[in-house]
Amino acid sequence: MQCDTVWTNCRLLVKAGQPVIDKGMIAARGGHIVYAGPAADYTGDTIDLQGRLVTPGLIDPHTHLVFAGNRAHEFKLRLDGASYEDIARSGGGILSTVTSTRAATEDDLITAALPRLDALLASGVTTVEIKSGYGLTLEDELKMLRAAKALAHHRKVRVVTTLLGAHALPPEYTGRPDAYIDEVCERMIPAVAHENLASAVDVFCEGIGFSPAQTERVFMAAKAHGLTVKLHAEQLSNLHGAALAARYGALSADHLEHLDADGIAALRDANTVATVLPGAYYFMRETIKPPIEALRAAGVPMAIATDCNPGTSPLTSILLAMNMAATLYRMTVDECLTGVTIHAAQALGLSHEIGTLEAGKACDLAIWDCEQPADLVYFMGFSPLHARVFQGQTV
Amino acid sequence: MQCDTVWTNCRLLVKAGQPVIDKGMIAARGGHIVYAGPAADYTGDTIDLQGRLVTPGLIDPHTHLVFAGNRAHEFKLRLDGASYEDIARSGGGILSTVTSTRAATEDDLITAALPRLDALLASGVTTVEIKSGYGLTLEDELKMLRAAKALAHHRKVRVVTTLLGAHALPPEYTGRPDAYIDEVCERMIPAVAHENLASAVDVFCEGIGFSPAQTERVFMAAKAHGLTVKLHAEQLSNLHGAALAARYGALSADHLEHLDADGIAALRDANTVATVLPGAYYFMRETIKPPIEALRAAGVPMAIATDCNPGTSPLTSILLAMNMAATLYRMTVDECLTGVTIHAAQALGLSHEIGTLEAGKACDLAIWDCEQPADLVYFMGFSPLHARVFQGQTV
Ligand SMILES: [Zn+2]
Ligand SMILES: [Zn+2]
Repeated sequence: MQCDTVWTNCRLLVKAGQPVIDKGMIAARGGHIVYAGPAADYTGDTIDLQGRLVTPGLIDPHTHLVFAGNRAHEFKLRLDGASYEDIARSGGGILSTVTSTRAATEDDLITAALPRLDALLASGVTTVEIKSGYGLTLEDELKMLRAAKALAHHRKVRVVTTLLGAHALPPEYTGRPDAYIDEVCERMIPAVAHENLASAVDVFCEGIGFSPAQTERVFMAAKAHGLTVKLHAEQLSNLHGAALAARYGALSADHLEHLDADGIAALRDANTVATVLPGAYYFMRETIKPPIEALRAAGVPMAIATDCNPGTSPLTSILLAMNMAATLYRMTVDECLTGVTIHAAQALGLSHEIGTLEAGKACDLAIWDCEQPADLVYFMGFSPLHARVFQGQTV
Repeated sequence: MQCDTVWTNCRLLVKAGQPVIDKGMIAARGGHIVYAGPAADYTGDTIDLQGRLVTPGLIDPHTHLVFAGNRAHEFKLRLDGASYEDIARSGGGILSTVTSTRAATEDDLITAALPRLDALLASGVTTVEIKSGYGLTLEDELKMLRAAKALAHHRKVRVVTTLLGAHALPPEYTGRPDAYIDEVCERMIPAVAHENLASAVDVFCEGIGFSPAQTERVFMAAKAHGLTVKLHAEQLSNLHGAALAARYGALSADHLEHLDADGIAALRDANTVATVLPGAYYFMRETIKPPIEALRAAGVPMAIATDCNPGTSPLTSILLAMNMAATLYRMTVDECLTGVTIHAAQALGLSHEIGTLEAGKACDLAIWDCEQPADLVYFMGFSPLHARVFQGQTV
C-alpha cells in the first residue's frame, strides 16, 4: 500500500468497545485511514509511538463555545447568596451573554473562544460542534456561525456548526415569541442555508424556552431548507420534545433528564442519538438524571458532550465530561468512550467520516500517555494527551 | 529597594479575600517578596505582566500523590456492576496499591508521580503536601517519603511530607492492629524524625481504619519526636476524631463529612484547620457533606485539597477541587481562594512562609490569563495559568 504516514508500535483502539490491539499500526493517505490494525509489514518510513495508546480523536458533539463576556461574577454572586432573580434583575443571566456577544466583532468572538477551544483540544478533541444562540438577530447569529467556522482556520480541528436561533427570546420580542420564531424560520434559516453556515438547526424546547409547537415550526423550516435538526429536550421538564425531534428524524436529542418511556421508544425507533450533558447537571446541581438504564436497555445510542457554555456548564474538557457521565450517571467506561467517538459522530451526521479508525475515515487520532482506555474516564482534571493527529497531520 | 526581580503591570491579589489591586507590582529578593502592592517607582529592569492576574501560588495541602500501580480498571469494573467486595476479593482496593508500591523502587515512584505532579503544577500549585501510606512497612514508608521529597529536585515546587503509616492495616498484621500501631510508633515515627523525612504524622481514623485510641497512641509518639499531627477524621462516620486531633494541637483535620457541633467547637478552640476534600465526596458519590455553614459560622479556617489518590480521588487539579468545593459544598469564591492559599498554608504550618504575597514570604506566584479570581473557581477542566513563579524564579 502507498501511504503518506504510518504509525507503528502503539496500543490501538480501532473502535470503542473493542479490545485494544497490543501491537498496532495505522497508515494514512490523503488525510484518510488506509489501514488500522495489528502490525503488518511495511517498508517505508514509520513513526514509532513507543507503545502509546491510540484512540480515535475525540468528538464533542454539543457546545456553545463561541460567546463573549464572562459570567464568573454571577457564579460568585450566587455562592454569596444572590438568587437567579437577583442576578437577572441586575442584567445577568443569558441576556448578559447576548449583550456581550452582540457587541463583539467576529474577531472578538474568535479571540474569546480560542482559549476554550485550546482546552478542549488538550483533552483529545479533533471534532467539535458549536452552536450559535447568543446573537438572536439575523446578523449576530450569522456572525457567531462565521466565527465558529473560522476557528477551524486557527486550529487543526473539524468544526460542525448548528444554528440555535431559537435559544432564548431576545428582549426585542418580549411577549411575542411567535414573531421571533417567524424571524428564525423566515430569515435566519434561509440565510444560514444559503451561506452554508450550519448543517443543523437546534431549538431550546422548554418552559423557559420555546414550546413544542414553536419547535415544530423551526423544524419544518429547517427541513424545507435541507438542514437536519436536533433539540435541547427534556432538560428541566418533560414537554415530549425528544419524541417530536424523533418524528423529524433529528440527529440527536440532548440533555434528556426528564425523558419518559415514550420518548425513549421514539428515539430508539428513529435511531436518534441521546446526547447527555452531565456538566450542566453537575454545575446546576440538578437531582434528576437522564434515564440511562432505560436508554441502555432500549439500545438508544448515547453520546456525551461538554455543553460548554457560560451559564450552565463552563466545562472545557471532554475527558471530564466522560468522568461525570461515569461518576454521576453510572455510564460504563465503554459507553463513555463510545459516547465521545462513534455515537458523537452519529449525533453530528458524520458516522461515515469520523468516530472510529476504520479504513476510509479521516485519520483523526488521539495519542495518549496512559495505560488503558479506562484511564481517560477515571482521572479528573488530568489529560494524558501526548499528541493529536488531524486528517493525517500530527498537531 | 534592591531587588532581583520586579514584576509590573499586573492585577494583584495580595491576599485572598482582599480586593484585586488594578495596577500592581511585586518585587522579590533572594526568593522572597520585598514588596507587593500598588505600582511604585522603580528604576531597574522589570517584567511587564501585561495586565495579567497574579495570585499567591496555590497550595494543595492534602495529597497521596506518590504511589505505584493503576486502579482505573477497578473503576471500570465497578461501573460494569462489580461490588467493592468483588474487587477486594480479586486483589483490588488499597492493597493493590500497597502491593504495587512495595514492588516499586524510589525511582519508579518518582517516575509514576511526575505526570500527576505536572498536572497539579499546571493548575497553579507551588506547594504540595504528600503523604506516605501505601508502603506500610518501615522501609517502604521511608521509600515513599524519600520519593516525595525527591520530587522537589525534579520540579520547582515546595513539597511538604507527612507520615501516614497508619493509613491501613497491612495484611501481615491482620487481626493485630495494635501490634501494627506499635510498629508505627516505635519504629516508623522515630526513623522518620531521625531522618527528617516528614514534618507531620497523620492517621486514618475510621471504622475501616484505626480507632481513636490507636490514633491517640500515634499522636503521642509523634509529639514525643517533635512532629506535628493531622488526621483523616469523620469521613464515613463520626468517631470524634476532629476533637481528638484538636486536643493534640493538630494542624488540620481532614474530610469531616460527619463532623458534629462538638467537633466544630474543638477545631475552633484549637485553631485547627478543617480541610475539605470534595474530590473524594464527588468520586465516591457520598451524600453527606461537611457542615460548611456551621464551620463558617464558628470561624473555623477551611482549606481545600485534591486528596489526589488512586482509590477515592484521582484528581490532579486544585482548580477543579475549588470548583467542587463551590459547586458541591457551596463554599464562596473567597472561601475557595482562601482555602488553597492562606488556610492551606496554615494546614501545613507554613503561614509565616507562604499563602499570601506579603513582604518576607516566599515569592511564589501564579500568573493567570484570566479576568478575575472568580474565574479560577468557575471554570471546569480549564486552567488559565500563564506561568508560575517559585521562590522568585519564573518556571
Ligand atoms: Zn446546550
Ligand atoms: Zn487522604
